[in-house]
Amino acid sequence: MKQGIEHYSVGDAFDDFILIKSASRGITSNGKPFLTLILRDTTGEIEAKLWDSTKEDEDIFLPEQIVRISGEINQFRGKPQLKIFSIRLSQPTDNVQVADFIEKAPVAPETLMERLTSAIFEMTNPSLQRIVRALVKKYQESLLSYPAAARHHHAYASGLAHHTVSMLAVAKDLHDLYPQTNKDLLYAGVILHDMGKIKELSGMVTTSYTLEGKLLGHIPIMVEEIGLMAKELEIEGEEVLILQHLILSHHGKAEWGSPKMPLIREAELLHLIDLIDARMNTLNRALDKVEPGEFTERLFGLDNRAFYKPAFEEK
Amino acid sequence: MKQGIEHYSVGDAFDDFILIKSASRGITSNGKPFLTLILRDTTGEIEAKLWDSTKEDEDIFLPEQIVRISGEINQFRGKPQLKIFSIRLSQPTDNVQVADFIEKAPVAPETLMERLTSAIFEMTNPSLQRIVRALVKKYQESLLSYPAAARHHHAYASGLAHHTVSMLAVAKDLHDLYPQTNKDLLYAGVILHDMGKIKELSGMVTTSYTLEGKLLGHIPIMVEEIGLMAKELEIEGEEVLILQHLILSHHGKAEWGSPKMPLIREAELLHLIDLIDARMNTLNRALDKVEPGEFTERLFGLDNRAFYKPAFEEK
Amino acid sequence: MKQGIEHYSVGDAFDDFILIKSASRGITSNGKPFLTLILRDTTGEIEAKLWDSTKEDEDIFLPEQIVRISGEINQFRGKPQLKIFSIRLSQPTDNVQVADFIEKAPVAPETLMERLTSAIFEMTNPSLQRIVRALVKKYQESLLSYPAAARHHHAYASGLAHHTVSMLAVAKDLHDLYPQTNKDLLYAGVILHDMGKIKELSGMVTTSYTLEGKLLGHIPIMVEEIGLMAKELEIEGEEVLILQHLILSHHGKAEWGSPKMPLIREAELLHLIDLIDARMNTLNRALDKVEPGEFTERLFGLDNRAFYKPAFEEK
Amino acid sequence: MKQGIEHYSVGDAFDDFILIKSASRGITSNGKPFLTLILRDTTGEIEAKLWDSTKEDEDIFLPEQIVRISGEINQFRGKPQLKIFSIRLSQPTDNVQVADFIEKAPVAPETLMERLTSAIFEMTNPSLQRIVRALVKKYQESLLSYPAAARHHHAYASGLAHHTVSMLAVAKDLHDLYPQTNKDLLYAGVILHDMGKIKELSGMVTTSYTLEGKLLGHIPIMVEEIGLMAKELEIEGEEVLILQHLILSHHGKAEWGSPKMPLIREAELLHLIDLIDARMNTLNRALDKVEPGEFTERLFGLDNRAFYKPAFEEK
Amino acid sequence: MKQGIEHYSVGDAFDDFILIKSASRGITSNGKPFLTLILRDTTGEIEAKLWDSTKEDEDIFLPEQIVRISGEINQFRGKPQLKIFSIRLSQPTDNVQVADFIEKAPVAPETLMERLTSAIFEMTNPSLQRIVRALVKKYQESLLSYPAAARHHHAYASGLAHHTVSMLAVAKDLHDLYPQTNKDLLYAGVILHDMGKIKELSGMVTTSYTLEGKLLGHIPIMVEEIGLMAKELEIEGEEVLILQHLILSHHGKAEWGSPKMPLIREAELLHLIDLIDARMNTLNRALDKVEPGEFTERLFGLDNRAFYKPAFEEK
Amino acid sequence: MKQGIEHYSVGDAFDDFILIKSASRGITSNGKPFLTLILRDTTGEIEAKLWDSTKEDEDIFLPEQIVRISGEINQFRGKPQLKIFSIRLSQPTDNVQVADFIEKAPVAPETLMERLTSAIFEMTNPSLQRIVRALVKKYQESLLSYPAAARHHHAYASGLAHHTVSMLAVAKDLHDLYPQTNKDLLYAGVILHDMGKIKELSGMVTTSYTLEGKLLGHIPIMVEEIGLMAKELEIEGEEVLILQHLILSHHGKAEWGSPKMPLIREAELLHLIDLIDARMNTLNRALDKVEPGEFTERLFGLDNRAFYKPAFEEK
Repeated sequence: MKQGIEHYSVGDAFDDFILIKSASRGITSNGKPFLTLILRDTTGEIEAKLWDSTKEDEDIFLPEQIVRISGEINQFRGKPQLKIFSIRLSQPTDNVQVADFIEKAPVAPETLMERLTSAIFEMTNPSLQRIVRALVKKYQESLLSYPAAARHHHAYASGLAHHTVSMLAVAKDLHDLYPQTNKDLLYAGVILHDMGKIKELSGMVTTSYTLEGKLLGHIPIMVEEIGLMAKELEIEGEEVLILQHLILSHHGKAEWGSPKMPLIREAELLHLIDLIDARMNTLNRALDKVEPGEFTERLFGLDNRAFYKPAFEEK
Repeated sequence: MKQGIEHYSVGDAFDDFILIKSASRGITSNGKPFLTLILRDTTGEIEAKLWDSTKEDEDIFLPEQIVRISGEINQFRGKPQLKIFSIRLSQPTDNVQVADFIEKAPVAPETLMERLTSAIFEMTNPSLQRIVRALVKKYQESLLSYPAAARHHHAYASGLAHHTVSMLAVAKDLHDLYPQTNKDLLYAGVILHDMGKIKELSGMVTTSYTLEGKLLGHIPIMVEEIGLMAKELEIEGEEVLILQHLILSHHGKAEWGSPKMPLIREAELLHLIDLIDARMNTLNRALDKVEPGEFTERLFGLDNRAFYKPAFEEK
Repeated sequence: MKQGIEHYSVGDAFDDFILIKSASRGITSNGKPFLTLILRDTTGEIEAKLWDSTKEDEDIFLPEQIVRISGEINQFRGKPQLKIFSIRLSQPTDNVQVADFIEKAPVAPETLMERLTSAIFEMTNPSLQRIVRALVKKYQESLLSYPAAARHHHAYASGLAHHTVSMLAVAKDLHDLYPQTNKDLLYAGVILHDMGKIKELSGMVTTSYTLEGKLLGHIPIMVEEIGLMAKELEIEGEEVLILQHLILSHHGKAEWGSPKMPLIREAELLHLIDLIDARMNTLNRALDKVEPGEFTERLFGLDNRAFYKPAFEEK
Repeated sequence: MKQGIEHYSVGDAFDDFILIKSASRGITSNGKPFLTLILRDTTGEIEAKLWDSTKEDEDIFLPEQIVRISGEINQFRGKPQLKIFSIRLSQPTDNVQVADFIEKAPVAPETLMERLTSAIFEMTNPSLQRIVRALVKKYQESLLSYPAAARHHHAYASGLAHHTVSMLAVAKDLHDLYPQTNKDLLYAGVILHDMGKIKELSGMVTTSYTLEGKLLGHIPIMVEEIGLMAKELEIEGEEVLILQHLILSHHGKAEWGSPKMPLIREAELLHLIDLIDARMNTLNRALDKVEPGEFTERLFGLDNRAFYKPAFEEK
Repeated sequence: MKQGIEHYSVGDAFDDFILIKSASRGITSNGKPFLTLILRDTTGEIEAKLWDSTKEDEDIFLPEQIVRISGEINQFRGKPQLKIFSIRLSQPTDNVQVADFIEKAPVAPETLMERLTSAIFEMTNPSLQRIVRALVKKYQESLLSYPAAARHHHAYASGLAHHTVSMLAVAKDLHDLYPQTNKDLLYAGVILHDMGKIKELSGMVTTSYTLEGKLLGHIPIMVEEIGLMAKELEIEGEEVLILQHLILSHHGKAEWGSPKMPLIREAELLHLIDLIDARMNTLNRALDKVEPGEFTERLFGLDNRAFYKPAFEEK
Repeated sequence: MKQGIEHYSVGDAFDDFILIKSASRGITSNGKPFLTLILRDTTGEIEAKLWDSTKEDEDIFLPEQIVRISGEINQFRGKPQLKIFSIRLSQPTDNVQVADFIEKAPVAPETLMERLTSAIFEMTNPSLQRIVRALVKKYQESLLSYPAAARHHHAYASGLAHHTVSMLAVAKDLHDLYPQTNKDLLYAGVILHDMGKIKELSGMVTTSYTLEGKLLGHIPIMVEEIGLMAKELEIEGEEVLILQHLILSHHGKAEWGSPKMPLIREAELLHLIDLIDARMNTLNRALDKVEPGEFTERLFGLDNRAFYKPAFEEK
């Protein structure tokens, strides 16, 4: 793919590989079946209709499949639509893979893993260190591939690890400036705070909520995970309870999903570090898309505010 | 105790056994130590000062101890106070026990246990039944002695089991009227919904909050307990998740401590049954204390409302 | 009608009687008049366009009229639409009536009336009994035909009486479990609590709000009705006031339309019974429409929550 | 009474008539009965203890009685207290009456009545005029003596009529400035809006809430009164409904006791005129008590704000 | 323009001058450029498409230009659209001007200015008078042409001055009825309270928010303006501070944009006068558009309420 | 002063210098005047009564005076009170000064000033740098002596500068981690954000609110100051507006005093840095006072939460 779907204009021909994000069957008013495909690459999404679709089409053109499409960009009710002339599944010899079509964190998974490992290595409280190390090991693969959210901040492959590592850097600096804080607690809280999202979200490409995610949510899921792991490792003592409290309270208040507000200094700080990193990530991505002197689109994670990019920054 | 502390008037002599609810040391303005004791029996509480207290006094006159006091009821700043002439710890030969001084549920623990057992026996889903049975067994002793709250509804010995059994009766009737509801889920939810209070509250006499209660609260505690027990019993399947959701959501909304609102029919009904039983218990106890034509005191668990007892009920 | 409009597919021919729910006139872009009809039977609704409509068409194809249409199911902007080939008003000889096209309560009006009568008969307080009996008699016909709401719970013919009778059953059981409650007050409150909806809603088919409904609402309407009836029957005493309070407070709090929160035990219980019956009715109807393992649509009366139907219930 | 109780200092002798506002019995720590009297005149209140009170004392020294006390102003816990040397009930020959001890509106009842009559005379819609005239006649005596509130604005004898007449003047001016408004509706709304307080409050001296006031409140009480009066006068038509809506909505929103927000232009204006007159009355009274450059006490009816009296107003 | 765009029907020919409110470029699905114009006159707005638009078209058909269009009223997706046959810019000889196409206050700017001048003349406090006079002089031209809001109340040319003058009349009357209020403060507050909108809004025709309006808002803008003007005029003393407080607090509470609630009697009254005039203006305009017995559209500035116009007013 | 008032016990003799924080006159029940003095040093406060005080006593024992008292620690109603045997004003030869009795920031004013100067030196945008430098110069003396709040965080001498410098360190680190942020804006926002407190608070010792503080608050005060200074320095351009926005929005939302929420990336970050530093300062000070395993008192600035100090930190 030379350029990405976002850069095509109405009337352009299209002949490239692209990823199926979702596929659903419909019936035309004269009774004929068709497939509506949402296609995506790293630059954006486009809708396509596969008219007169067969039963076999429905069975093979599934989410997370890569397809080769030859067609043309049309417009339908004011939005671009890809008109399909021909379509086929990609094959091993095509040498394309899902990761090519998904936005990725700006830091490689290996580097993210190194920084996590190094932070765990810095920890000195054995109870906290062992729980964190065991959980990182247990969920390592997903941790390095999952996004941090379905839609909002760090919503890209490895976003979860990227958010975690970025917060570790903030935590390190703030611990230096406020040395009364307990670094082990801060690090443990940062590393585990969103790990429950691995069970809450369905995966890397079609990030929707799992049943467990809808009925419990990532916070109670992770509180339980810590309890189970402590039991498995035969770790007892106040550290386990306090670590569970950090996870439970990290959204800051009941309306945001934390049944207890932070009651430990490091829990309060964890909550604020999470806010800073999530908001800076969202803001940087939104402001990158606009010119100085313009406002961004409204940002859901920031109370639907549209932010202004100062004109004097041009100079 | 012939009558209970609530029935003594200023000027009455007192010579009886009574339970120490709390004890704290003070210093008079001329530098002498004294003990402030809060004493209670089933009818109420009274404050007493033990002047010129010794180090030994402080060591033996502790909460949950029964003492024999000879003294007189005085008044201090408008409130009655017990003036101590002599005081001693109770001894085995006195044949008094803590349970004699604490308000109890109107149903005996054995009866409460029978009803719990019978409800579990009625259940047909093996996963739900095994988890419930194992947890009731694990916590049986505390379940039969704990109050359901530190202050509000069912705040008496065996209050937790009394509240549970009372809710089971409501659940049974509502299941009959709304037969689409799943009885096993309802029963399991009712029996386990407040069991986490055994870890949240400190005990039967001086019911304050434990550290675990303050940092996690009975809801996340119980969600984790169910997870651990399911793991121990090697039970898998959606029942575990859904049972955890019932516990998690039973307070109904975020501001009341449930990070997820009920998303299962039986979860919604469990929340409403809990409201009914807690409020009827609070209201019955408050209205019992007033005459027809009068208002109760303000009731904390009912938005600080004072309820009216209709005068025409006399007839 | 063999099957109901909900079961027709695009392309199917249609030749049956159906009820007009609403009719409105429009003008095409080339200046020709047409009628947009919303047609309904017990299974659902469909839109139809009557092109080139005459003045006479406008005068006869009115809401609450039954028409015979011959046509075909088409699709317009993704939604089915009935294309009309021919249309005529039903005639007496067609032997169809409005009630055939409206969803009805699952219990017959006569049975509902029997249960109401029997509950009134159980009452022993003469003041309460006489007011309730007189109001049921005054509004009997509407009470047995009206829905309980324009859109939400019990939104079908006889829904108001069905909701009332269903709540009476709950009230009876809860009175048995909490015998301190006054059964007469509970029954009177249940029977009258929503009767004001007869003046608030416009009728059985096109349930919109009346001017009185919009400016006063069913709660103040009913408080006044009770006052007027008590005056007419020359009944005095606290019962009247307390019954008015039950009606006034039955929505539970100011934001939900009750200027006074419940201050009588039975008022509190009435509010909770109303919640239970309204929510169970809404939930049962919504869950009936989905398969185990699926979520319902979002339910307005339950905070827009989508509820999950457990997969294990299949077994 | 030369000067009023507010102007006495600690150490001053007191020998005058004063009104008993409330009386309650107590017991000293050595078992002796006493009476606590709250005494008031137009300038303020003072507490007094009648030690060694007899049964007869309790029977005669009741609220709303005038007594002659000879004594001295003392101080108890930082607040002044009247030490009683001798006390007796006033007698007809003393020529004192309750009205002498209660704060009164600055306009005489006769003048207030004239203005009400004149406003009613100005009305031209016969339905509105007849209802208003009949209700003013029915409640005339209380209307001219009741306060407008137990504690807040216009909390003095004739306060209700004073508030009403003051609002009539504002309504007249605003109708002139916004001539699209319906003067009859505005006048009718103003005159009746708070008339329900006559049933909500217990009376002129010890203004507490009646049972009807607590269970229904003055708004639903008055909506019903209008309905009953319209029926009695055989008045039908939209005017009655709209007048009831004006009363129902005049607090502006649900949290403030109006189950419907204003939906009629004159209802919105009535709500705003009520706010203006209540707040100006509260503010004028509070600012009169402080010097330029000072803040008032916190004002309950104005969100507990303390208002500033500009220093430059001195000039 | 004989009649105004609102009175044209589908199919009517159009040949008249009209004002461009906004213009934006689009691309058809076959890649051809076009302009979407929103056209307006005093009666309403209509959309028009200029197909196959040239670069030159884009440069001349700009907002606030008047154009002569010959065309026909069509319908597109249920809404009228003006089909353009020919279009040209107006020329000086056409003798049309922007003001002809914009809704205006019902009072002439000169009259509004006279009333402002006369109110300033009435003031006696020299500090307040000098600041007000200087600011009115500085912003006179905009004050007489700006609307009072982009969308809501007084949203027409000279709306700001019309709102101000209308409030002055209310203030005068209320000062007469509550003579303790300081007239100079009231007048100064009324005249300056919304003057910051001149910097907050972009102008008379395309009233959108300026950057300053979005980042600061008219309240802090005006507080600063008063501070700067007082400095320039070398006026010191409490008057300046109190006048700034009146402006700062005139929205009444934090959620509405006032970081301080009113703490001065005249500030409270200013807030209420602003509410009255804004709401009466909105209501009068909305009720003028409906018939007796109908409801208005939902009104944004009045909590989205739809108001009812009584049917009995016809008589 | 050897040890500080906090360390005296009931019965201890006292003979030392101490600062008068407040003084007020009272009258005993037998009519004699006395002074109630609140005395403070860096460790705490104590009340003292000066009985039989003379007019001269009232004139010299004023707030912010240092006195030498010889007396004894007594207890009154459960709280310690200093019984005065003799008292005199301090004299120059006593060599004591106000600063000795007030808690101070842990960093010297000179060091704080150096860090401010160095941050200003780092700035490169001339408009921002000149405004900040001029305002720091204008308010330098107060900036280095004022507390950051009357009661809550950094409530000690030089607290304002300490808070500012501490935030600068956080801002520097976060700018390094999020290099897209504009350092000049961040630094300017940090340095000026609370400078308005110099006009909002009355001073270093008796920190109450000024009239300007109560009627405008430090946020609008500072927005205006920036506007005035920019005018004085003849600086124009978007920087001024954006800097004013940073100040205006730094409390984050309307309920917290910011009429505009942050709409600039650096404004959002400034708000979060302010939260972090204020909360860490409050938490560190509160946790320093308790032992591991204990809870702090309830902290006003943190939603009245009591925080727990983990017991395992002892190890």
